[in-house]
Amino acid sequence: MTVDEIRLARAYLLRVAEPPAPEVVSLVKDLGAVRAAQLVRAGKAADDETAARRHLDVAAMDIEAARAKQARLVIPEDEEWPAWQLLALANAAARGVPGMTEPLGLWVRGRARLDALVQEAVAVIGARAATGYGEHVASEIAFGLAERSVTVVSGAAYGIDGCAHRGALGANGPTIAVLACGVDVAYPVGHTALLAKIADTGAVVSEYPPSTRPARHRFLVRNRLIAALAAGTVVVEAGRRSGSRNTAATTSALGRPLMAVPGPVTSAMSVGCHDLLRSAGATAVCSVEDVMADAGRIGVDASTRSDEPLRSTDGLDRVMLRVHEELPSRGGLSAERIAVGSGVPLSRVRALLPELELLGLVQKCEAGWCRGTG
Amino acid sequence: MTVDEIRLARAYLLRVAEPPAPEVVSLVKDLGAVRAAQLVRAGKAADDETAARRHLDVAAMDIEAARAKQARLVIPEDEEWPAWQLLALANAAARGVPGMTEPLGLWVRGRARLDALVQEAVAVIGARAATGYGEHVASEIAFGLAERSVTVVSGAAYGIDGCAHRGALGANGPTIAVLACGVDVAYPVGHTALLAKIADTGAVVSEYPPSTRPARHRFLVRNRLIAALAAGTVVVEAGRRSGSRNTAATTSALGRPLMAVPGPVTSAMSVGCHDLLRSAGATAVCSVEDVMADAGRIGVDASTRSDEPLRSTDGLDRVMLRVHEELPSRGGLSAERIAVGSGVPLSRVRALLPELELLGLVQKCEAGWCRGTG
Repeated sequence: MTVDEIRLARAYLLRVAEPPAPEVVSLVKDLGAVRAAQLVRAGKAADDETAARRHLDVAAMDIEAARAKQARLVIPEDEEWPAWQLLALANAAARGVPGMTEPLGLWVRGRARLDALVQEAVAVIGARAATGYGEHVASEIAFGLAERSVTVVSGAAYGIDGCAHRGALGANGPTIAVLACGVDVAYPVGHTALLAKIADTGAVVSEYPPSTRPARHRFLVRNRLIAALAAGTVVVEAGRRSGSRNTAATTSALGRPLMAVPGPVTSAMSVGCHDLLRSAGATAVCSVEDVMADAGRIGVDASTRSDEPLRSTDGLDRVMLRVHEELPSRGGLSAERIAVGSGVPLSRVRALLPELELLGLVQKCEAGWCRGTG
Repeated sequence: MTVDEIRLARAYLLRVAEPPAPEVVSLVKDLGAVRAAQLVRAGKAADDETAARRHLDVAAMDIEAARAKQARLVIPEDEEWPAWQLLALANAAARGVPGMTEPLGLWVRGRARLDALVQEAVAVIGARAATGYGEHVASEIAFGLAERSVTVVSGAAYGIDGCAHRGALGANGPTIAVLACGVDVAYPVGHTALLAKIADTGAVVSEYPPSTRPARHRFLVRNRLIAALAAGTVVVEAGRRSGSRNTAATTSALGRPLMAVPGPVTSAMSVGCHDLLRSAGATAVCSVEDVMADAGRIGVDASTRSDEPLRSTDGLDRVMLRVHEELPSRGGLSAERIAVGSGVPLSRVRALLPELELLGLVQKCEAGWCRGTG
């Protein structure tokens, strides 16, 4: 069995199984990727996770589409696989932390070797709606990390993430953007040039096959990779409901140091950071020196806490969220198209849509189903 | 033996022994204040702590001077003595923490009963050179505490202290100012009216006899009373070398909750607070709700840390500091006057002055000795 056969099998599984797909990952561990792919293709295993898309046998096309954009699929069988960093996910999963499934592979756009990039890496993340203060601090910390040859990992969003990447680039340092969409998808669109620049010296990374569009549940799933690829996570600014708190919780669940930048108690964009300091065992970091000191600490036992449900979709389980997210903001889709797009089996999609309708989150429309007003 | 005799004896000892005077306090514990005063007056006990001033037998005059300013000497034999709060000092002293001597008595200016005032009390302290941000937060927290009938304890300095007192007064709440000078001395002079207002509904408190002028070593000694009279201490803003860090360390040494308000990492006036968060076990408090939650916690085991010597006088021991502080900023004094003013025996003053001269901290002048340029 050649590495290329394994790569094709993993590409296929990444296309048909929406991450995190614990059944598929466990199947691959037991039988190897090639055999696992055969069983999935034949509809003989991991049905719940693959039924909706297992007919999408486009692995070779995905690899070719990636290559056209200077991207490749890195798999555990490759030397550059960041095995040590990702081991934390397997360990957390073994401890029963939900959603900590290891990725089946990582699509990488960029010339640098992934294992070299993450050897010394710190995640610098935060709110999209950052303040000038947060943007300043994120840039300074990222610049300082890059000066010390530490890779800055972030999520390429507007606000803090963008400043983190740019700060690192400003010091000619490597930086990694982990996306919740395909590595060939420019999201957010205003960061098209930034993503290209990140790929020049660092890496744009994603589990999602080329051309996958971002969805809210994918950001949450993506966040575990940011936390896992970095030795520690710095939250620079975060509102009360910021997605950064999900990455923060994962960081603690992985046993990695969680850091938060203090800010004015009068600033809504520092509320999340102060909560992390008060209730999630985060340490206060004020400078790159503080980050270097704290990211070096190993096995910090920070307690995680779940955020209270605040959004209308916060009470949904992962599968319901995937169905809901699949609906476009305008117009509607048939149940069949929702199943293919979300990777949720059609029978479950058909059962869940009425439930979501009761919650006011979806409604029937001409095309089938569209978003509700909830 | 009447309480008035004991009060006179304690007033005498407070006049002749510069606090903290562990030998005198221990003598009083063993023999009672009246007998201890007799021995001290006769030069037969605690010589090191009392030789320089034991001839100052002016207790009745001190009590009369206090009464003229609506002040009184509260002693452990009085019902209103805050025995429970001050017990933490004796406990810390028993554990070997230096400088935690209990006060022999407290001069109190104000109508309220001291024990009632401190039943629920939180210290709100910070830098003199506060920013608008710090002043705003100090006022808000103090106002909120007062609204909840919690007494605000502070040091009556400009900046954060003043805002803390004024915030409490603004909510018609009681507040305690603990001074490093006599309760009849308006220091700082710009707070003359504020101190009068504090005395109206709360209390102005000091160990130092009437007309004692402030000196830097007295602020450090005073700080232990702020920490002891409060259930916990909030540091709102503090520079790298702020005296608030001394109160913070004492708070932790007493096993009381230490709290710090986060601020912009770009602000020099929040550096001390962030250090307390990072290295002294302080909790981050962003609101009066946070303070109420954290001040309620009991027996927080925060590690204390000593500040590095940063000032020219930082390496001096307590006695040398007292001698040095006695020198006015302009003009000079004889060794005899330094001994009386500082309470350090004349023989030791004569031995220490040449040492201080070698350090460049004092120099000879026409009047005897004056401050050096160090």
